[in-house]
This record gives sequence, C-alpha cells and structure tokens, in this order.
Amino acid sequence: MRGFYIGRFQPYHNGHHTMVSTIADEVDELVLGIGSAGDSHSAHDPFTAGERIMMITKAVREYEREHDLVTYVVPIEDLNRNSVWVSHVQSMSPSFEVAYSNNPLVVQLFEEAGIEVRQSSMFERDRLEGSDIRQRMIDGETWRDRVPDAVVETIEEINGIQRLRTVAEDDVVERWEAKNGSGGESARRDDD
Amino acid sequence: MRGFYIGRFQPYHNGHHTMVSTIADEVDELVLGIGSAGDSHSAHDPFTAGERIMMITKAVREYEREHDLVTYVVPIEDLNRNSVWVSHVQSMSPSFEVAYSNNPLVVQLFEEAGIEVRQSSMFERDRLEGSDIRQRMIDGETWRDRVPDAVVETIEEINGIQRLRTVAEDDVVERWEAKNGSGGESARRDDD
Amino acid sequence: MRGFYIGRFQPYHNGHHTMVSTIADEVDELVLGIGSAGDSHSAHDPFTAGERIMMITKAVREYEREHDLVTYVVPIEDLNRNSVWVSHVQSMSPSFEVAYSNNPLVVQLFEEAGIEVRQSSMFERDRLEGSDIRQRMIDGETWRDRVPDAVVETIEEINGIQRLRTVAEDDVVERWEAKNGSGGESARRDDD
Amino acid sequence: MRGFYIGRFQPYHNGHHTMVSTIADEVDELVLGIGSAGDSHSAHDPFTAGERIMMITKAVREYEREHDLVTYVVPIEDLNRNSVWVSHVQSMSPSFEVAYSNNPLVVQLFEEAGIEVRQSSMFERDRLEGSDIRQRMIDGETWRDRVPDAVVETIEEINGIQRLRTVAEDDVVERWEAKNGSGGESARRDDD
Amino acid sequence: MRGFYIGRFQPYHNGHHTMVSTIADEVDELVLGIGSAGDSHSAHDPFTAGERIMMITKAVREYEREHDLVTYVVPIEDLNRNSVWVSHVQSMSPSFEVAYSNNPLVVQLFEEAGIEVRQSSMFERDRLEGSDIRQRMIDGETWRDRVPDAVVETIEEINGIQRLRTVAEDDVVERWEAKNGSGGESARRDDD
Amino acid sequence: MRGFYIGRFQPYHNGHHTMVSTIADEVDELVLGIGSAGDSHSAHDPFTAGERIMMITKAVREYEREHDLVTYVVPIEDLNRNSVWVSHVQSMSPSFEVAYSNNPLVVQLFEEAGIEVRQSSMFERDRLEGSDIRQRMIDGETWRDRVPDAVVETIEEINGIQRLRTVAEDDVVERWEAKNGSGGESARRDDD
Repeated sequence: MRGFYIGRFQPYHNGHHTMVSTIADEVDELVLGIGSAGDSHSAHDPFTAGERIMMITKAVREYEREHDLVTYVVPIEDLNRNSVWVSHVQSMSPSFEVAYSNNPLVVQLFEEAGIEVRQSSMFERDRLEGSDIRQRMIDGETWRDRVPDAVVETIEEINGIQRLRTVAEDDVVERWEAKNGSGGESARRDDD
Repeated sequence: MRGFYIGRFQPYHNGHHTMVSTIADEVDELVLGIGSAGDSHSAHDPFTAGERIMMITKAVREYEREHDLVTYVVPIEDLNRNSVWVSHVQSMSPSFEVAYSNNPLVVQLFEEAGIEVRQSSMFERDRLEGSDIRQRMIDGETWRDRVPDAVVETIEEINGIQRLRTVAEDDVVERWEAKNGSGGESARRDDD
Repeated sequence: MRGFYIGRFQPYHNGHHTMVSTIADEVDELVLGIGSAGDSHSAHDPFTAGERIMMITKAVREYEREHDLVTYVVPIEDLNRNSVWVSHVQSMSPSFEVAYSNNPLVVQLFEEAGIEVRQSSMFERDRLEGSDIRQRMIDGETWRDRVPDAVVETIEEINGIQRLRTVAEDDVVERWEAKNGSGGESARRDDD
Repeated sequence: MRGFYIGRFQPYHNGHHTMVSTIADEVDELVLGIGSAGDSHSAHDPFTAGERIMMITKAVREYEREHDLVTYVVPIEDLNRNSVWVSHVQSMSPSFEVAYSNNPLVVQLFEEAGIEVRQSSMFERDRLEGSDIRQRMIDGETWRDRVPDAVVETIEEINGIQRLRTVAEDDVVERWEAKNGSGGESARRDDD
Repeated sequence: MRGFYIGRFQPYHNGHHTMVSTIADEVDELVLGIGSAGDSHSAHDPFTAGERIMMITKAVREYEREHDLVTYVVPIEDLNRNSVWVSHVQSMSPSFEVAYSNNPLVVQLFEEAGIEVRQSSMFERDRLEGSDIRQRMIDGETWRDRVPDAVVETIEEINGIQRLRTVAEDDVVERWEAKNGSGGESARRDDD
Repeated sequence: MRGFYIGRFQPYHNGHHTMVSTIADEVDELVLGIGSAGDSHSAHDPFTAGERIMMITKAVREYEREHDLVTYVVPIEDLNRNSVWVSHVQSMSPSFEVAYSNNPLVVQLFEEAGIEVRQSSMFERDRLEGSDIRQRMIDGETWRDRVPDAVVETIEEINGIQRLRTVAEDDVVERWEAKNGSGGESARRDDD
C-alpha cells in the first residue's frame, strides 16, 4: 500500500521524522509531498523546494533500508483553489490509497474526495514545531538537536540561517507598520 | 433596463434577498454576480460557486414570477487586478446599465469606468451579515431563519455546516499562531 | 555605469527624490523600477503603474539635465515567487551593474544572485514615508510639500485624493471586521 | 436527475438546441456549461461569456416551459490543466449525475473521474457546425436560419458580425505569415 | 495631446522609426508600448523587454529634440484575455487620447472601448517587416541598414544574433516534427 | 558532482535510459527534471507528472546500485517565461554543477546563466524518439521493447494506451478542422 504525507517542511524536523517512521509500519511506499513548493525566502517559508528535497531525501534514506520502505519526494506548487487541490495533488504524485494529515482543511478536502485520511495526536504537536524552530534559528538558540543531521548539513551548506535572519527583518518592519501605520499594509519586496 | 448586483453570497441570506426584491422594482432584468467564484472551503468562503448558484437560482425563482423579473446568476472568478476588474465583470455578464453596491471599492471602480452605481443604507447592514451567519453556523446557534428556504436545503444537502466547522478549525490554529508565533504566519493546507 | 533603484512609489516622494539625486552622483544611467506595477485602487497601492510612470518621468526630468543622467522608468509586475524575482527584474530592465535598496528581502535576493547592492541609512527613512503621506492624504493634512511638484500635478489631474479616500474606507470596514468578526476575514471588492 | 452539457457555444446554434431538447427528455435539470469563458474577440471565439449567456438563456427559455426543465447557464473559465479540469467544472456547476459530450478528451476526463458520460452520433455533427457558421458570417452567407432567434437578436445587438469579420482579418495576416515567414510565428494583438 | 503606439518591436526597425516620426507631428507626447513584454528567447520574440527598452529609448532620443516630443517607453505583459486588454493597457500607460495601430484586433478592441484609433497604409508594411529582419539575421544576410544605429548597438552588446540563431534551431526541429509527427506537437524547452 | 538532466519523458524510454547510464559515469548524483509537469491527457503529453515519477524512479533504481548513483526525480511545472526559466529550475531542484541537454533553447538559457551544458550526438536521436513511441502506441504497433520494463508496468497499470488513443482522437478532429476550417482553430475540451 502507498501512503501520502504532505507538509511544508520548513524545515523537515524530528517531529516529521518520527511521523514518517510511524507511517513506515503501515505502508510499503510513501510519498512525501512538499507543499507550497514555489515559496521561499520568507520568514514563513525560508527554503526552496530544491533545498527541502535534499533535506528530506537524505534524512529518509536510513528508513528506506530499516523499514524496507520506498519513498518519493514530490514538490507540489500551490494552486490557490481549494476545490481542485486534491486533483492537483493526485496528478503530481504517484497514486496513493491513504493520506496522513492532521490539518483540518486537508482532512476535509481529502474526505470530500472519498480518500481515506489517518490522523493522530502526534500530528498536532508536529504542526506547531516548525515556526518554533524557525524562531530559534532567528534568535540564535539551539535548533540542531531538533532536526535530522542531513537537515543541519543542507542548511549550513546553503547558509540558511543568515538567509532566514535577513528575510525575517523584512517582516519585522512590516509588523511595525501593521501596528503603527494604516492597517492593511503588507510590505513587498520593494521600498514604499 | 438591466441591473447588476454583485456579492460573494457566502451564503445568500435574507439581507441579499430583500435587496433583490427592492432592485426588482427598478429593473426588468437582474444579473446576480457571484464574486470570488473560485474560492471555497475556507471560513471566509465556505461554499463553491456551484453551490451558491443553486442557492440563489432557487431562492430568486419566486421573484421571477412575482416581479416578472428575468435573472441571470453568473459566477465571477477573481482577477486580482483592480484596474481591469470592471472590464472582466462586463465580459462575463450580460450587458447592464446600472450597478448596485455599497462596497467603496466597487463603487469607485464602476464610477471611474463611467457606470452608474446605486447605493442604499440597506446595503451596509447587508454587508455585515454574512460573517455573522457563518459564525452562528460554527457556534451551533440558529441561522435557518436568516436565509431563504432554498439556501437551507442546499446547505443541508451538501453537509455545509460540518464543512464550515472543519475548515474554521484550521483558522483557529492559524489565529493562535498569529497571536503567539512569529507574525506573518499564514497556515496553508499542509502541516508546517 | 548603470544603476537600478526599485520602489513601489505610492506615491513618488521627496525621500525617493533625494535618493535619486544621491545615486545620480554614482552612475551614468539609472533605471527606476516601479514595483507591484499591477496593483492599484487600494489604500496601500492607490495609483496605477501608468500614473506612477507620469509622476516619476516628470519629476526626474530636472535631474536628467542637472546631473547629465539618463533614466529609464520601468513598471515591474509582481511574479509572487521570490526565487525567480531577480531574473524577472533583469529581463524587464536594461542591464545594470549595481542595485540600490535597503529592503532586507531585496538585498538578500540580489546578493544571492551575485549582484552588488548598495544601502544607506537614508533609505530606511525613505521606506517609512510612503504610508505616512498616504495617511495624510486620507486625513486631509498637508502632503503637497512632501512630494515633487510633478507628483502634485498628476495626483490632482487624476483626482487621486478622492480615490484614495474612497478605497481606504473599504479597508476601514475590513479592519472593523478583523477586530470584531471571525478572524481570517479579508474583504474583497464585493459585499459579503 | 441533473445533467451537464458543455460547449463553447460560439455561437449557440440549432445543433446545440436540438441536443438540449433531446437531453431534456432524460433529465429534470440541465446545466449548460460555457467553456473557454474567458476567450473572446478571436475568429475561433468571437463572443464573450456574457454574450453567450444571453444567447443561451433566452433560447432555452421555451424548453423550460415545454419540457418542465430547470436550466443553469454557467461560464467556465479555462484552467489549462487537464488533470484538474473535472474538479474545476464540478466546483463551478451545481452537482450533476451525468455528463453529455462527444469530445474524446472530455469523455476521457469524466470517465477517469468515475462520472457517467452519454454520447450520441448527433453530437459529432454538432461539433463541426460551429466553425462553419462562423465562416458563413465572415463570408456574408446566410447563417440566421442555423441558430435560434434569440441568438440572432443578441448578435445583432452587439454588432457581432462586424466584430467577427474584423478579428478574422487578423488571422488572415497570421496565416499569410505562417505560410511565408519563419514558422512558429503567431501574431498577437500588436504590430511586429 | 498624448498618443499611444504599440508594437512587439522584435526588433525596433526603420518602419517603426518612420512611423514614430509621422506620429510626432500629430502629438505632444507619445507612449511606446512594448507588447508581449514577458516573451523572449524564441524565434518570434528573441529580445527581452529590457533589451527592447534600451533599443527604443536610445533610438527615439533624437526625435525628442527634433520634434520637441516627450516619449514614454512602457513594457506591457500579455494578459491573454482580449476582453480586458484595453483596461490593462490603460492601467500600465500614462493616459492617452489616441491610439495608432493597423492591427485589426487592436483596432477592434480600442474602438469597442470608445478610443479613437488612427490607421495608415504605412502601418501595414511596417507590420510585415519584423519577421523579415529576424529571418535575415538568422540567414546571415544584411540587416543593419534596416534598423536605427542604437538597435545595432544593443543587439551586438547582448550577442543577439547568436541567441536568435540558436533558439531558431529549436523551431526548426519543431517544424520538422509538426510535418512528420503526430499533429498538435509543440516542442518545449526540454527533450521529448 | 551533481548533474541535471531534463526531459518531458512522455514516456521515459530506452534513449533516455541509455543517456542516464552515460551520465552516471560522470556524476555522483543526478537530478532528473520532469518538464511540463502540469500537462497530461493530450497526444503530446499523455501522462501525468505522478505517473512519470513512478516510471522513472523504478527504472533508474537499478542504476542507483550499479553505478552507486544518487538520483532525484523532480517534476517542474512550466512557467512560460523563458527569461526566468533557469531560476525556476534552480529553485525546484537540488543544486547542480552541470546540465545535460541537446535542446537548443535549453542550452542557450543555461549558457546565458553561466551554467555548463554538456551535449552529445546521442541526445538528438533521443529527442526524436518520444513522438515515435507515442505514435506506435496509438497505431497498435510494438512499443514495449523501446522502454524499460518499469515503464511498461506503469503504463499498463494506468491503462495508458487506451487513454492516449482516446485523447489522440481529439487531435485528429482538430487537424481536420485546421486543414479545412478557418485557420487559427484550436479545439479545446468542449464541443464547438
């Protein structure tokens, strides 16, 4: 049986990694869908799809042997239309029988399309860890112990911490404006 | 004379319905434009264009006879460019002589294009009712008395309340993050 | 040497104008890139690309003679994908050797692409003036002394203050909803 | 039961009209989907979605009474991605149980999605009539007897024959270039 | 009075240049709109918008002095929807009172929008010269005498002839396939 | 060293497979980019990205062991703008030092971006085989000996030959129209 597990993986961390290990016991093959694949260089989405592909492919390699698991790592660009999102995912991914997610919208969309979804309480925790790790990277706190080694390597190779800190500054200005300026402001990649 | 009345109709409610009745005295034919037609499955836009077409078409049927009114129900997808929005609407709709709206941006865009716009104080109230009704649906309070019967039928047929509650959960997590996390976060349809 | 200076120029004001004067001493030719060229008719982006082209072209004409400077005014539509933004800018602009910006994201993107970026503390102030001037226009306070004369002319010719006030109302309703309603609301160009 | 019948309807002609009459005996409600709704002003797609909505709505009104048929006329913009096309159609249309088409791609897409498709030999003829009627309009031959009266009215009201002839000239130049110039040429809406 | 003249300008040649000279006698200011601004690196559209901006800005400089003409050179990206094209152009360009074109579609669209269009027999010839000059560049025949000097400079600076020849090869393969293969083939930027 | 090899792989055939084997001797890791990833269900692009991922991942598995090669299979959606295509590819792919292609446009774009491209005469043959194999599938001639076993499996599992034949019919009608009708015709997924 083939399963599908989607995340933005900004970055791929130990929460995700544990989840993959759990799923590995239930399926023969697993597709890891990288959501919002076109987004990068923001505080919310610092890493490109290509960078995330490297992180994940290298991190799950050990499971491939241990669990005799076949994995596919597939970037999925946003289509910004919930009603066709499941079809989009299905066309970009090897076919799958079961989806793993705890995101309410993802669950709803897959279930309306008649696809089995498995949830677990572990997912919730997982869901909240990403922004936490990015904040630690920005603040200079320890983060290396919260992600697989392959992820540390990739982030260092691309000088990812520096990038994240720089683009996060942009958001700081924006938040300052949002609090003080005429609401609705949303800074872009240019001066005002 | 043909009039044009645009709304997101999430859902079509008694405020809209009264407005159509009022407009019906001024025009022979009325185009009901369904805005943001491509959006669905979110707390702000729970219903698809197709579902909204059903709600409205059935609800206004009584007016067609009563007021001897011809109606057209036309989904209008967003183009995300204010400067061409009027042309977009005109190309998707049977031609019209007068537009009905109280939305400041809509009024401005139509007036810059030289199209007559009629506003009324009723519109304002109408404008604010949609989110109220959606909140009542989420909270399990009464809402059926605030929409035409045809709308109740459609929402029950598609199991709309369950859908709205599920996708609204997604927004709850998001709001929690927005308050506590590193601003600028906007959850997507995938885990982090 | 040719330089590149990008801004949204909503509107082009004395901060920008001083900056251009400063840059003029360092380059022979200067490209003024108008960011978010497709946006208009909102409180954040009231003016069209065409209107901004007029403001800037007329305002910089004096510098062309004074500094013997060649200028190009180039609208740049958003591509909404940070990873290809530099290529997009390069394809829309005459080739340039140095970029001027103090926006952290712009600096990061140009530097990752190997393009020299020059920053100055003046830019920061400049960055924050745009929303201030728009607020003054909305509130009926003095603003004409903060922009070049050519900008005053263009804004008056297009009846820009009236437009800005009207579309800003839209945002007021939206903010009201955001504070009181069910979060995640973002009003569009249609009633609810 | 509700059926779905899609066409570009450029224009809606007697072949389509006969088909609707036939389908009317099999369904209670019929959705007429207007394909390529965003296209207009070309020799292949001369009429806007709004104009086609008028043609069809008025033409099928007689069937509504005769066959006690409820109809919905729904413009469907292209999404240019075959793999999500069925989902797109489903989200824009009231839900339907059976689709009518003889277009091989449409049949394939609906069938892969598990939706019943009904074909008939009549459809084939129907398929080929549209370009024939447009050619007759261009060449000044009789065409009024090949479309319902409501279509004649709409086309005359919008001065449609003149428009079609003018935009067809554009294609003539293009074909000339294609035959004589460096292949792959496709003229746009601007001089070379 | 301000005029608008649109072309793809691939490249800007003497036919265009003569036209600008003629128009210069009728207007005070002239907007040169660069159509299909996002297209480049193909046999039909070899040069980027930025490269075309350079060609034109430098070439028309002499007219600015001679005719006391103010010019604006504005790239216009395709929107691929004829029905909103005029609004798109108007939002990207300084406002204009008269448009110059001999392209039937452009004429039709502007006239439906109520904008005066001026045509002349000279335009026709002009229209056909672009592909001819590109073919000469590919075949190694003389072309420098058919474009202003500023255009020669730009093309040589960017090594444009080599680029055009290389991308034209791509089209040769494509045409070969089109003639021999299973119709509808259109090669992309990847092997098969 | 990491290499990048892009193709549409409709389907992945022995020509591609031999090429991968050759490249495997020159690199440690290889990214296989699947071009036009969003296209499917046409005579030119019958298979979805997900289906092609399966074909390739399974086919190259043997090389992974034999050549001690690490592979990444990455779908790349079209961006339809040549000038940003290299950036797009780079953001979707693990970083690479050398690209393999014989497609003139791909070579030109990579070289303008300063990326080394390796070509070989084998590529040319490879380039032409795809349409040939698709034609054989349509005509019922032997094709299984021209693709790796894993590809045969995938195509049979998805009933790919039937799909290809059906959608190719669509193109037949289209070609018929193109030859006989008013040029510029391009059939869509709907009747006329």
